[in-house]
Amino acid sequence: MATSKFISQLENLWSQNKFVCVGLDSDYSLIPETIKNSHSVSEAMVTFNQLIIDKTHDLVCAYKLNSAFYEAEGIEGLKALKQTITYIRENTEIPVILDAKRGDIGNTSAAYAKSVFEDLQADAVTVSPYLGEESLKPFLDYQDKGIIVLVKTSNPGGSEFQNILSIDGEPVYQIVAKHIASSWNKNGNCGVVVGATYPEELKQVRDIIGDMPILIPGIGAQGGELEATIKAGKNSKGQGMLIHSARGIIFADDARKATEDLNNQIKLIL
Amino acid sequence: MATSKFISQLENLWSQNKFVCVGLDSDYSLIPETIKNSHSVSEAMVTFNQLIIDKTHDLVCAYKLNSAFYEAEGIEGLKALKQTITYIRENTEIPVILDAKRGDIGNTSAAYAKSVFEDLQADAVTVSPYLGEESLKPFLDYQDKGIIVLVKTSNPGGSEFQNILSIDGEPVYQIVAKHIASSWNKNGNCGVVVGATYPEELKQVRDIIGDMPILIPGIGAQGGELEATIKAGKNSKGQGMLIHSARGIIFADDARKATEDLNNQIKLIL
Repeated sequence: MATSKFISQLENLWSQNKFVCVGLDSDYSLIPETIKNSHSVSEAMVTFNQLIIDKTHDLVCAYKLNSAFYEAEGIEGLKALKQTITYIRENTEIPVILDAKRGDIGNTSAAYAKSVFEDLQADAVTVSPYLGEESLKPFLDYQDKGIIVLVKTSNPGGSEFQNILSIDGEPVYQIVAKHIASSWNKNGNCGVVVGATYPEELKQVRDIIGDMPILIPGIGAQGGELEATIKAGKNSKGQGMLIHSARGIIFADDARKATEDLNNQIKLIL
Repeated sequence: MATSKFISQLENLWSQNKFVCVGLDSDYSLIPETIKNSHSVSEAMVTFNQLIIDKTHDLVCAYKLNSAFYEAEGIEGLKALKQTITYIRENTEIPVILDAKRGDIGNTSAAYAKSVFEDLQADAVTVSPYLGEESLKPFLDYQDKGIIVLVKTSNPGGSEFQNILSIDGEPVYQIVAKHIASSWNKNGNCGVVVGATYPEELKQVRDIIGDMPILIPGIGAQGGELEATIKAGKNSKGQGMLIHSARGIIFADDARKATEDLNNQIKLIL
């Protein structure tokens, strides 16, 4: 099977023992006053992000920008989103994931895909499976990009529908994982999201999807335990994971040290 | 039960026999050259929308803007999105739905809700149920707004997961509808999306949710039949529907006539 450029980049970084995905969830209200003082909203968000990127880019396997924290600041925030992605592309070799959880009918998905991959120039995007494979085809057709599908989310209420048991005895999230593995991944460009808060479900999804990348949020602030997560989530090569941390890194006293510490813990467990 | 300002607005317009929700899916590539020639991208999109709004606002129950078609044009498109919403708010009494199908974990949903309701000032938003009620609480807490949840989507592949049969013999979309009716709608501010392409499922959802509003896309270009849709979708008051049309109105030779024709057909059936 062909492998997308995004996934090749990840495999290269994993082979260098880099597993941390830094979440640039740069909530403007939490950016230090010293940065805000002399800048517009957009400049402050970009400056804050650049400081994090400069300190961490040689340690990580991906940056993930959650669109919500940028959209919340209106046009200024969206300028910051675009400028941050450009900065990462021009100054590092690290792939950029836009965490937008998009999902709409076909012609609308085509417009979202244009926004994410052509205007913003992200390397990968998160999508919601609720409308099915057919609706997401405009994303899946971008062979060199990464399409990371929500399977089992990290939030406490994620089980409300994801764990509905089907008449065949399978929970919905496992059916989603099976469809992705058996049909959606024709271009070798899919990944999945499974929260660290559900290590048993993580293991079940890993068994279903083979070596496909898993984006794993929920370590730290949300309560996911690292050791259980890694044992459940690693693939047959002892890789295949993007261990996501946002607040634990970007609002730490020393973002580089926080990233190094997390990556060292991961390496030790692996 | 309290009723949100959004739903009160709808009920008022329905009582005037206005059932059409115009989708301002103003794909820039389809805007006439005469409008594009003398304008920036943003100005052209706003001008195009203003012409539609001026011609139709006394005939409709809502405007729906699909975020994707604006995001696809980058910052220029997002300026047009915001300016169009402002124009509708300042010049009409018609509520605005942002069709964004948002859905993320709690603190991220809070940022999206801030973007949709405080920055963009929309009256309602579409959301995806995949992460459960808990994840959407920041939206549901806006008592005066409308939270319109995807239940059964209009696209051909929507059944892939939405129609998984549970061990209790219920399809997933019906379980979603039941949870919305029994728990999510505490503030009386919920609605649901069901595609006109599935009239049987529309009837089942109507039976589950009582008089709650249903946003119904899929008439026309997508193949949904109006008569079957209305018979299945109307509530106990012979109302409760937002019959959505986008391309069939905004790219028609005469947008006013296309809206009038559709609304007259609806009235005749009702």
